[in-house]
Formats: sequence, structure tokens, C-alpha cells
Amino acid sequence: MIQGTIEAIHMNNPLQSHKLTQPGDIALMISAQNKRFLICLTPDSKLETHRGILQHNDLINQSWGSRVLSHLGSPFLLLQPSLADILMETRRNTQIMYPKDIGFIFITMGIGPGIHVLEAGTGSGSLTTALAFATGSSGMVVSYDTRQDTQRLAQKNLERVGLSDRVSFKIRDIIDGFDEVDMDALFLDVPNPYDYLSQARAALKPGGFFGSILPTTNQVSLLLVALKREGFGFIDVCEVILRYYKPVPERLRPTDRMVAHTGYLIFARSTSDDMITPEFVPSPEDPPIPSSE
Amino acid sequence: MIQGTIEAIHMNNPLQSHKLTQPGDIALMISAQNKRFLICLTPDSKLETHRGILQHNDLINQSWGSRVLSHLGSPFLLLQPSLADILMETRRNTQIMYPKDIGFIFITMGIGPGIHVLEAGTGSGSLTTALAFATGSSGMVVSYDTRQDTQRLAQKNLERVGLSDRVSFKIRDIIDGFDEVDMDALFLDVPNPYDYLSQARAALKPGGFFGSILPTTNQVSLLLVALKREGFGFIDVCEVILRYYKPVPERLRPTDRMVAHTGYLIFARSTSDDMITPEFVPSPEDPPIPSSE
Amino acid sequence: MIQGTIEAIHMNNPLQSHKLTQPGDIALMISAQNKRFLICLTPDSKLETHRGILQHNDLINQSWGSRVLSHLGSPFLLLQPSLADILMETRRNTQIMYPKDIGFIFITMGIGPGIHVLEAGTGSGSLTTALAFATGSSGMVVSYDTRQDTQRLAQKNLERVGLSDRVSFKIRDIIDGFDEVDMDALFLDVPNPYDYLSQARAALKPGGFFGSILPTTNQVSLLLVALKREGFGFIDVCEVILRYYKPVPERLRPTDRMVAHTGYLIFARSTSDDMITPEFVPSPEDPPIPSSE
Amino acid sequence: MIQGTIEAIHMNNPLQSHKLTQPGDIALMISAQNKRFLICLTPDSKLETHRGILQHNDLINQSWGSRVLSHLGSPFLLLQPSLADILMETRRNTQIMYPKDIGFIFITMGIGPGIHVLEAGTGSGSLTTALAFATGSSGMVVSYDTRQDTQRLAQKNLERVGLSDRVSFKIRDIIDGFDEVDMDALFLDVPNPYDYLSQARAALKPGGFFGSILPTTNQVSLLLVALKREGFGFIDVCEVILRYYKPVPERLRPTDRMVAHTGYLIFARSTSDDMITPEFVPSPEDPPIPSSE
Repeated sequence: MIQGTIEAIHMNNPLQSHKLTQPGDIALMISAQNKRFLICLTPDSKLETHRGILQHNDLINQSWGSRVLSHLGSPFLLLQPSLADILMETRRNTQIMYPKDIGFIFITMGIGPGIHVLEAGTGSGSLTTALAFATGSSGMVVSYDTRQDTQRLAQKNLERVGLSDRVSFKIRDIIDGFDEVDMDALFLDVPNPYDYLSQARAALKPGGFFGSILPTTNQVSLLLVALKREGFGFIDVCEVILRYYKPVPERLRPTDRMVAHTGYLIFARSTSDDMITPEFVPSPEDPPIPSSE
Repeated sequence: MIQGTIEAIHMNNPLQSHKLTQPGDIALMISAQNKRFLICLTPDSKLETHRGILQHNDLINQSWGSRVLSHLGSPFLLLQPSLADILMETRRNTQIMYPKDIGFIFITMGIGPGIHVLEAGTGSGSLTTALAFATGSSGMVVSYDTRQDTQRLAQKNLERVGLSDRVSFKIRDIIDGFDEVDMDALFLDVPNPYDYLSQARAALKPGGFFGSILPTTNQVSLLLVALKREGFGFIDVCEVILRYYKPVPERLRPTDRMVAHTGYLIFARSTSDDMITPEFVPSPEDPPIPSSE
Repeated sequence: MIQGTIEAIHMNNPLQSHKLTQPGDIALMISAQNKRFLICLTPDSKLETHRGILQHNDLINQSWGSRVLSHLGSPFLLLQPSLADILMETRRNTQIMYPKDIGFIFITMGIGPGIHVLEAGTGSGSLTTALAFATGSSGMVVSYDTRQDTQRLAQKNLERVGLSDRVSFKIRDIIDGFDEVDMDALFLDVPNPYDYLSQARAALKPGGFFGSILPTTNQVSLLLVALKREGFGFIDVCEVILRYYKPVPERLRPTDRMVAHTGYLIFARSTSDDMITPEFVPSPEDPPIPSSE
Repeated sequence: MIQGTIEAIHMNNPLQSHKLTQPGDIALMISAQNKRFLICLTPDSKLETHRGILQHNDLINQSWGSRVLSHLGSPFLLLQPSLADILMETRRNTQIMYPKDIGFIFITMGIGPGIHVLEAGTGSGSLTTALAFATGSSGMVVSYDTRQDTQRLAQKNLERVGLSDRVSFKIRDIIDGFDEVDMDALFLDVPNPYDYLSQARAALKPGGFFGSILPTTNQVSLLLVALKREGFGFIDVCEVILRYYKPVPERLRPTDRMVAHTGYLIFARSTSDDMITPEFVPSPEDPPIPSSE
């Protein structure tokens, strides 16, 4: 019911634009030791940390970016989180999707305000959170999973950031198909997406965007076989690699270690069967490059 | 004036969700030779190609994903474009920003529906297009450039996809500052962002997101010096590398060649001066990793 | 017979250490347009180029690093080539192996002076050349191929750089096995190395080094299955990625494009059957890192 | 004096080719827990491990690849090490150079049997070890360092693998120059190689190979300025990135983490001053690619 209030406030976005914090805002509290706490500002609540207690009432009606003190005098920064900040604080019992992958998925699959998108499985809800954020109040997000406990955690993760009301959660083995049709985009984050392609096709509008992420090359090969068999077109496989640098101006260099792999991204479009002719086989050789490069 | 009609139709998004094409929709026409044409469906207009003419009237009220024929009988696919498709068709007289970078920038800087964001320079408008798309009808995008001709091309690029009304274009040397204050995010795509940090700070709300992209390590070092001097916090430097695979299931392998470099991304937050203490120096060693990894 | 003379001069290495050029030396001639010519200095021979003719006699008894002029007055640099320079000038009718891969293969497989190594197939001879160079006059290199024409080209490539006498070339389908036993190392550069593992085992000494390069992930999986089945141990799979920078000090940045893929490298050791127990399964998780890092 | 015996045995290479182990051989003992011990087989010596004691006498005259038991019955593999194995076991008090970098350096700088090469500083001796191995008994390796303690450790590392007699170690601040002239190649592994380029030039033969490794982009820029000022030619900057895969055939995928950075490699050739004209400026745009690709 507090959640309801939050939703009333945030017509568009829990991360919406304003200068002073309000009840219902999602806030990122960062300690001097760079420990991070993601909270929904709720009157009369409190945040307990190893460095002392922070009263939410003291955090409301403050300027974003303020420095506040715990009851033990430890300083904290009060910041509005980015989507990446939120994703990094997702509580999980499964592997989550990374910001680097989600960002590229959104641009490639046309995810934005007003878009209707399906997802399976829900997992810990990191992609779900990002979809709810990006499609906005005018969008539609439906998320399927077979496991109640997993999806329950995801729901809590979205509630925590005021986005749960934007998502329809469904417990279902998607082998039985999706309820929805004419969806703009569909993302399968399951180990065997190749088993659900006719269901995906039935849920997507003609030409709709299909996406998936898979950790192994073997799964990628199986999905490619199935996508071709099911008549999907414009298939792309890629990986997004993120390399951080130590931000020291006089000794600029990459960090010593990096994440080497999260998953391979596979994209396709649900072109209709009769269009699948040798004419429309896209070149497998050349990555898409901006046209005048 | 047709553009006005388009805007009336697309309250949220010119790429909005619907099954049948409508006047004002942005469509991607793809020939059997994989040649691509991005058009705004306009009654009584026509698209002329080397493979024949397509009448827009024949493309309106069609199902997305349809196969259509030119007057010479050449087949074309009628597809709703993704943001990446649109960016790749941006007409340019400057280097454009790539989808791989824009996707990560959005997730990292909290860009989404309702967000207020500043950009300089406009360039050919690829980031402008993406910002207008992602912030939606409730957002605010302001784009500065010093060159009228460059910004005019960008404006045309946005008009072509029905997004120009969402952006305020301004001709200004930003050394004179921005008109706006309390913005959520600000992106500098200029060769010398280090010269405009006090202006950026004045335009951002406390804790607001700063971002920039720079091709050379020398520029990155200069920007890092300036960011530290101006009291920005939570500085990150990274690069996003995209590697495509040939989508052949029985011979899965990366493409032979790839784009090796577009630019280094630099992010920071406009934390206020008095918070800048040794306590809040973030570790330069470790890239952010989801918390339970 | 000139070749014999060359060999007499170069007891150890056609790229051997000396200051003045001698007959039989391999020289790299570089034009002002950065066009490169690899030649074996031979009295009374000449090099014909688009920029004029160079008489070998004028190139002999010169200091390495000299600037010489063609009969048309065009300048050329007279340089001693590195192994990489030689490999890059290999004439080919097949895909060649790259220096970046060869360098890592040598360090990993213990290739150096005095080592006995087998290779199949010969291909255009780039790896053969590198093996003959690195194992020196005290080593042993045997190279198998099924195709006479391919191997003939490789032989010519090695003759051109004075290394052919170090290699035994054999025309053979290696399904029939190798003549050699107790070899230190064996490299299979064939599309189906998984078909020749018992032959490889028979040719290697116990614990000997096995290596292969394969372009696709499917081939890698097949080879891994076969290596485990045949009882090979200490299996590693990796790829070596080389990224060049524009050497401009005030605008340091990676080149725009790069080679994205040459092949996956697979290494193993021919441990004997009875040692293959669960005890000796190496961890597949962790890449080898120097011990005190 | 035992060392002398070893040298007598290994005319060419302590990793030389033979089937049965001999006194003086370098052996890699690997426990079932994948713990590794690098030893020089010495009559009447013993190796003490947490899994029991191994008598060297029991390891001599054995077949390479044998399985042997400690006095507690724990199994060990008796393997001939590769150069990479040796480098990974280098004892260090400084950052060592990695096999991935050393392999590419050797191919690029023409390092092989008979080559005369200078190095500074010695550091922990990993590059020194590799140079001594690759240049063989007919080569010449000279290694300079300012610190006696560091170089002493390096010397011990080389003694341990029977290669110390191939290297001349010198304690010297190289600002005072090198004793040697007309060297084929010179590698500077010091933080400020740009301060020693005239000394490097004086030690190299005309056209000789110069190389260096530097961790930061700032150092690379400084070195590039100095190389151009000192008239070096054919300058290249690159980095070698190594990505391991989990060797599981049915779930082939990269490891989760990887080394992101060791250093930038810089190569140049000591072309003489009068050749440095605009004609010979190599293109900074294009990485070298095999000629018929």
C-alpha cells in the first residue's frame, strides 16, 4: 500500500527527474568505505549499517547528492542511482544479466518507452528491472518463470525499486506457450531457448525482435540451427566485452583483471515463413558497421 | 506539418507498439541484397531505389514484417527498425557514436523515460536520436553545438524519424555555459571536455551523471585531471568492445575483422565540493562487479 | 648448390648475428612507400621493383640498416628481417599462421634450440619456417602434408630464407601414422586433428607437447572430446588477440580495425594412459597465472 | 660445480630432446592437486613436499611422463617443462613478464639461436631465462640491472634451470651506457626507457631491434616522443591479450575472469639518422597483416 503511493508519485519512472528527495524515491547510500545500500525512501523507516543507523525521515526532502551522517557520525552520500547501480545491487539466487549486455540488448531490440516485451525466465529479475525501467509507464512487460521462489525474489527486487507494478509475473512452463500475441520483442534467458522458438514466434508480431543470451558455444550452435529451421531472419551473434581502466591521469592503464565472459548474445527477427528465400540470407561475414564509415 | 501529425500519433514513441503500419511510422525497407532504406511512412510519397519504386501508400496499413514488391518486382521486407537500425542509418558529416557505446552509457547514466539530459556537441545527432528515443515524451533533451550546419543535419536526421520535436537544439559555445540547471545527466561529445567542467557542474543537479567519450588516451588523462580538480566523484573509465560471430551453427567462429576502437568512455558524478574527502576516493583497482559474484 | 654455400655460412641461423651483409643473408628491402621485398643475397642476382632495379652485388658487404638507391634513384632500406617479417612475406595458397599465435605456441610447447618437432600439414610453410628458425641447427623438424603442390610451395618459401635444409618434408596421409617416435612436440594444423590422436601419441615421447589451431568452436569441442578419450592431460584452450595502437604520442589510441580471429589454440600433453585418474584432472576454471601474482 | 656438469651435458639446451631423464635435467613435478615443483635433477638430492618426499635418484633414468610416488604414497607426474612452465615458476620480487608477451616479442624482434641480445633491467629474470633458452648455446645474452639483490635472485632462477652460464650479468646504471656494440636486439624493461635511447642506439647494430614493455599509456607516449626524436624507425605499439576457455567439450566457453593487462609492447628499429625522412614515415593507421590476406 505504501507501494501504491509510490506508484502514484512516479507516473513515469522511479528514477524520475527532481532535485529534492521525495517519499518513494529510490536512493543509493554510499559509505566512506564505498559500501552501497539501495533503499526506497519511506517515512519512519530506518537503514541499519555497520557504521550506524540512518533515519529515512532525515533523507527525505534533501537535495540529491547531499552528505548525511549516521547516528554514529559516519558520513554517507545520498545519491539517485542509475539503472546500472540498481542492477548491481540486485539480490540474486541465479546468475544475473550485466549492464554491459542489457544496454546493447535494448539498443538492438528497440526496447524503449511504450514497447511491449516478453521475457522468460524471470531469474533474479535484473533484466526484468531494466525492462520495466526502460519501457516506462506506457510499456508492457510480461515475465515468465517455472519457479515460484525465483520469481518471488525477482518481484521483491522490483518492489524494492518501485517497478513491480509495471510487470506481469507468470508462473508457467513456456513449452505451453505464451498468453500474449503481437509483442514487439521477446527475450529468452533460459538454458534451452531452441526448444521454445515456435512459442516465441506465436507471441511476436511479424518482424518482432527475438533475443537470447547463452554462456556456451554449444548452446549458440543449437540455437542457430533452431532459428534457421523456424525461419527467423537477420540473425546476429556477438559478445560485449567491457574493459575498465584505473582512473589515474598520470598512470592511465587498464585494470589488472577483468570479467572475461558473461554470455553470447543472439539476436534475430521474426520474419514470416514465406519470406525465407535464399534472397534474404544476410551475409554472415560482415558485422554491421555505420554506413559511411 | 506532416511532422505535426506524426507527433500527434506517436504520443510516446515513433517506434511504438502496433501491428499494422500507420502514417508517420518509421519503417526499415530491406532489399534482397540487404540494402537498407529508413523512411517515415507518408501518404502519397514514394521511395526510389535501384531495384524499383515503392509507393508509401502500398506500405501503409500493412502488417509489419510483410514482403512487398517494387514496381520492377524486386522484393523488400517492411520492418519496424530498432534504435540500432536507426543509428546505423544516420546521415553524418562527423564521426557518430556507436550502439555498443550508447547502450552502456544509458544504463550507466540512468537514461530512461522522464529523464532530463543535456548534450554537447550535437554532431550528426546519433546520440541525440537515442536520447530522444529513450527519455520518451515525458523526458527533456537539450543539445548544444557551435556549428549551425552540423546541427541542421542532426535535426534533419531526427525529423526523419519523428523525434525532432523532443529536442531543443541550441547554437552556443558552451564555454559560455548552459541555460539549464538541475539536469539529471550531461554528456560531452567534444574534443576538449576538460574545458567545460565548471559549466557542466552548474547545469547538473547535485549528484547528477556526467559522461564523455574520447578517442585518445591523452584526452582521457586530461579529462581525469580536470574531473578531480573540479571535485567530481565516482569516476570510471572503460571501453566497450563488440565482437561479432559468423552465425553458422556448424562452423561457429568470430568474424575475421572487427572494430578495434571507437572511444574511451568516462563517467563521473557531480558530487558537491565539501564531500570530496579522502574518505570517498573510490578504489581505482576493481571494476564494479555484481555483488554476489 | 648456392643453397649449400648458404648453409655452410649459417651454421646456426640465416638471421645470425653480424654487422655487414654477406652472401646468403636474408635481407628485407623496404621502399619509401613501405613496400617490402624479402631476398636472399646472391652474387650477380638482381631485384626488380616498380621503383627500379637493385643489384645484389651492391647490397653485399654493406652495413645492415644502410640506405641504398635503385638504378632509378629510389631509396630502399637494407634491413635484417625478424622472423615476423619473414612470416608476413610468406607466399601462400592456404591460410597461414600468424606471428601472435606462433610466438605463444613456442613458449607453451617448449620449442627452442635442439628440440625435435613434428608438424602436419605443411600448408604454405609459415609454421615450418618458424620451427626451423627456432629449433636451430641442432633441432629436428619434420613436416607432413598430403598435397605435393602445397608442400612444394612451402619448400620454396623455406629455400628462399635458407632454412629448407633443416626440414624433412614428407608427403603422407597421417592417418597412416608418422615415421618418428619420441618426438618432443607435435603440432597439427589440419581441419580434423581429432582423427589423428593415436598417431600423434605414437610419435610423441611420454609427456610430449601436443598443439593444434582450429578456426571454429565446433572443431574445438570435437578435439577436446578426442583428447580426453585418448588420455591426453593438461589440456588448455585459448586465443591470442593482438591489438595495435597508432604510434602517435600526442594522440595515442588503438587502430580503428583489428584482426578479430585467426584460430583457437589447443594444447595438451601426452601423459600415459595409466596416469589418467580423477586425481589429475586439472581445474578447468582458472587460467594459469604466474605464481606470486 | 654440479652446474658445470650440467652445462657439459646440455650443449644446446637444458630442455633438450631425450626420452630418459638424466642428471642436470630440469623436471616439473606435478601433484594430484596440481601443485607444481620445478627441480634440477641432482643425484642424492631430495624434494620435500606436503605430500611426502621424492628422492632425485628415483627420478633419474626414468621415462619422461612417468608417474612416481612420494614416500607417503602420493602420486606425482614427472614432466619435462616448457619454457612457459619455467617462467610461471620464476621466483620474483618484481613484476615478471608473461609468456604471452615474451612469445610475441621473440617473433617480432628476431630472437632465436645465435642472436646477440641486451636486456635492462634484469628484474626477476623471466625474460632473461627466456632469452637464454631461445638464443641457445651459440647466442649471447647480457643483462644489466642497478640492484644487486634483484639480479642475484634472477641469477638463482637461471641457475635453477641450468641457464645461468649463458648470461653475462652486469650491475650498472645504464645511463652510463652499455659495454656492447653491434647487438642484434635490445630490450628495455625499465620504467623510463625514454631516458636511455641514445645508449640503446650506441649498443645496437644499424637496423637492430629495439623493444620495451610499459604498463601505462603515459609512459608509451613519452617513449614514442623519444623514439621519434632519436630517429628510430618502424615503430609499433600493441598489446597481446590472452583469453582462456574452459576445456569442456559439451560446454565450451571462456573462463569467467582473465588477465586484462600486463603491458603495452613497443617495438622499433635502429635505423640510422640520415634515413629519417618523410619518405620513410610508416603508416600509423594499418596494423601489419600477412600480405595476401
